[in-house]
Amino acid sequence: MAVALAERLLAADPRALARAISLVEEARPAAVELLQAVWSRTGRATVVGVTGAPGSGKSSLVDRLIAHYRTAGRRVGVVAVDPSSAFSGGAILGDRVRMQEHAGDPGVFIRSMATRGHLGGLARATNDGIDLLDAAGYDPILVETVGVGQDEIEVVRTADVVAVVLVPGMGDDIQAIKAGILEIADVFVLNKADREGADRLEADLVAALALAPASERAPRPPIFRTVAVRGEGVPELALGLEQCLARAGARRRGTRRRERAAARLEALLAEGLLARVRERVLAGGVLDDLVQQIADRTLDPYTAARRVLERVEVS
Amino acid sequence: MAVALAERLLAADPRALARAISLVEEARPAAVELLQAVWSRTGRATVVGVTGAPGSGKSSLVDRLIAHYRTAGRRVGVVAVDPSSAFSGGAILGDRVRMQEHAGDPGVFIRSMATRGHLGGLARATNDGIDLLDAAGYDPILVETVGVGQDEIEVVRTADVVAVVLVPGMGDDIQAIKAGILEIADVFVLNKADREGADRLEADLVAALALAPASERAPRPPIFRTVAVRGEGVPELALGLEQCLARAGARRRGTRRRERAAARLEALLAEGLLARVRERVLAGGVLDDLVQQIADRTLDPYTAARRVLERVEVS
Repeated sequence: MAVALAERLLAADPRALARAISLVEEARPAAVELLQAVWSRTGRATVVGVTGAPGSGKSSLVDRLIAHYRTAGRRVGVVAVDPSSAFSGGAILGDRVRMQEHAGDPGVFIRSMATRGHLGGLARATNDGIDLLDAAGYDPILVETVGVGQDEIEVVRTADVVAVVLVPGMGDDIQAIKAGILEIADVFVLNKADREGADRLEADLVAALALAPASERAPRPPIFRTVAVRGEGVPELALGLEQCLARAGARRRGTRRRERAAARLEALLAEGLLARVRERVLAGGVLDDLVQQIADRTLDPYTAARRVLERVEVS
Repeated sequence: MAVALAERLLAADPRALARAISLVEEARPAAVELLQAVWSRTGRATVVGVTGAPGSGKSSLVDRLIAHYRTAGRRVGVVAVDPSSAFSGGAILGDRVRMQEHAGDPGVFIRSMATRGHLGGLARATNDGIDLLDAAGYDPILVETVGVGQDEIEVVRTADVVAVVLVPGMGDDIQAIKAGILEIADVFVLNKADREGADRLEADLVAALALAPASERAPRPPIFRTVAVRGEGVPELALGLEQCLARAGARRRGTRRRERAAARLEALLAEGLLARVRERVLAGGVLDDLVQQIADRTLDPYTAARRVLERVEVS
């Protein structure tokens, strides 16, 4: 089955792609075969990360970037990383609304990843999704995340180029620009730039960037102003992303891709190791017993973990 | 050293506590000894989770809750989970500003956790931090997170009671209330309730909650309105949190604590297993070789992971 699906995927059949992404989201065994089958056809697309806090207008910005790339004749893939659950229905609703705009355009494929896996599961599924879009010939691939959580930052920071979206008036404090996303930016976008406070935000941002050691970050990432809902500033931003990619060159691209490869391998190893330990050591109520003892404070978690780890042999 | 530090910690010496939390943040071996030494003295404090998007005014709300609990004579601990890095200086700056307000009050201890560990490292350090505050006699312990990332949701959802903070006018879309945080709320807080849009936000929230299967969520979590910067609605919220804890009773408390214990054990196992594999299988350039092959697309990550896992034996 995986082989047939792989063939349809490589032929850019959108239904095969949707099915394939569901397989990786659900971590099905067939997903592994599928990715192995298409692996040699991946690594070609440029991956553009777009991240920012909720309400920063990332989605509108991504929609305008899609339109921009479509005008240039490029087939655009979008992976939106979304920690929403099935309960809230957020991801699915969002998807539907956005897909309608591009309905009937086979040159656009948008998908939210809403897996609830732990310990790297979201990153694993998202990276798999990027590779599937890549194999299906979409280029560029935009990866959109809420960019406040650690996992989400991990996912986006290894994109070939990373745009961090900020917006004026998000709070009275510095929270909106402090959440660990400054240092991953290759490019900053001040969206909703027609709002009051845009100048102050830019000044705050420049001041925050000036705190970085000069050795680590030179030159300073460019700052673009946009009003995404009206499309203002979007062509300039797209050009800025291209220039950033060209300037950084093959060396940074190689570094980012090795970082992504390392993160993927680590996540797969963690998943695989935990699965094996659950099956061989923690089955038959052993896990429940340990957990109850920790919860009752009769056993500390470090001692519990050590006891389990003693049964693991690495040759 | 760990024993002496444990004694000072149990005697509520704030400098010992600060030192101890640094040890868990840095994942030092002494941190394990320390936690083992104080473990039997933990599990007493009530843990209150407060989560919401950046700009929702969580920090102001937490400050007001601190003042409320101080008036009642309680010693209050705060762990702010913050994915900021050393670069942005956000966590440290935020800490300083907030600590100044409570400077000289030994009944308040505030600490941001800004570790950059991967794969559960943040959750591990945060839970260790909670236990250290607990052992030092702080009660309640407020855990404040930005609540948009998956890791951060994992950290806060096993608190004894969870308050989700929403704010009017965060965006034109449903993003602000969709980020997977609805279902973890025991209590909702509409902060900045004097702003335009508060009624609409409450209506949207009630509509979103109505989508949940009745079996999973009955009764509906109460909704409180606050204007945290002026302290309005904060006593009512504090009372609501108490009532929620009393109503839920020992059974939910037990469930949450088992969930927290399970998450801790899993994170420690993942860290321990990966460390062992790194040391025994991936040392001496093996990891770099595998990563380079994955980046070059000559080896897929699943096959790479399988090769490593073949060398792990679980008895």
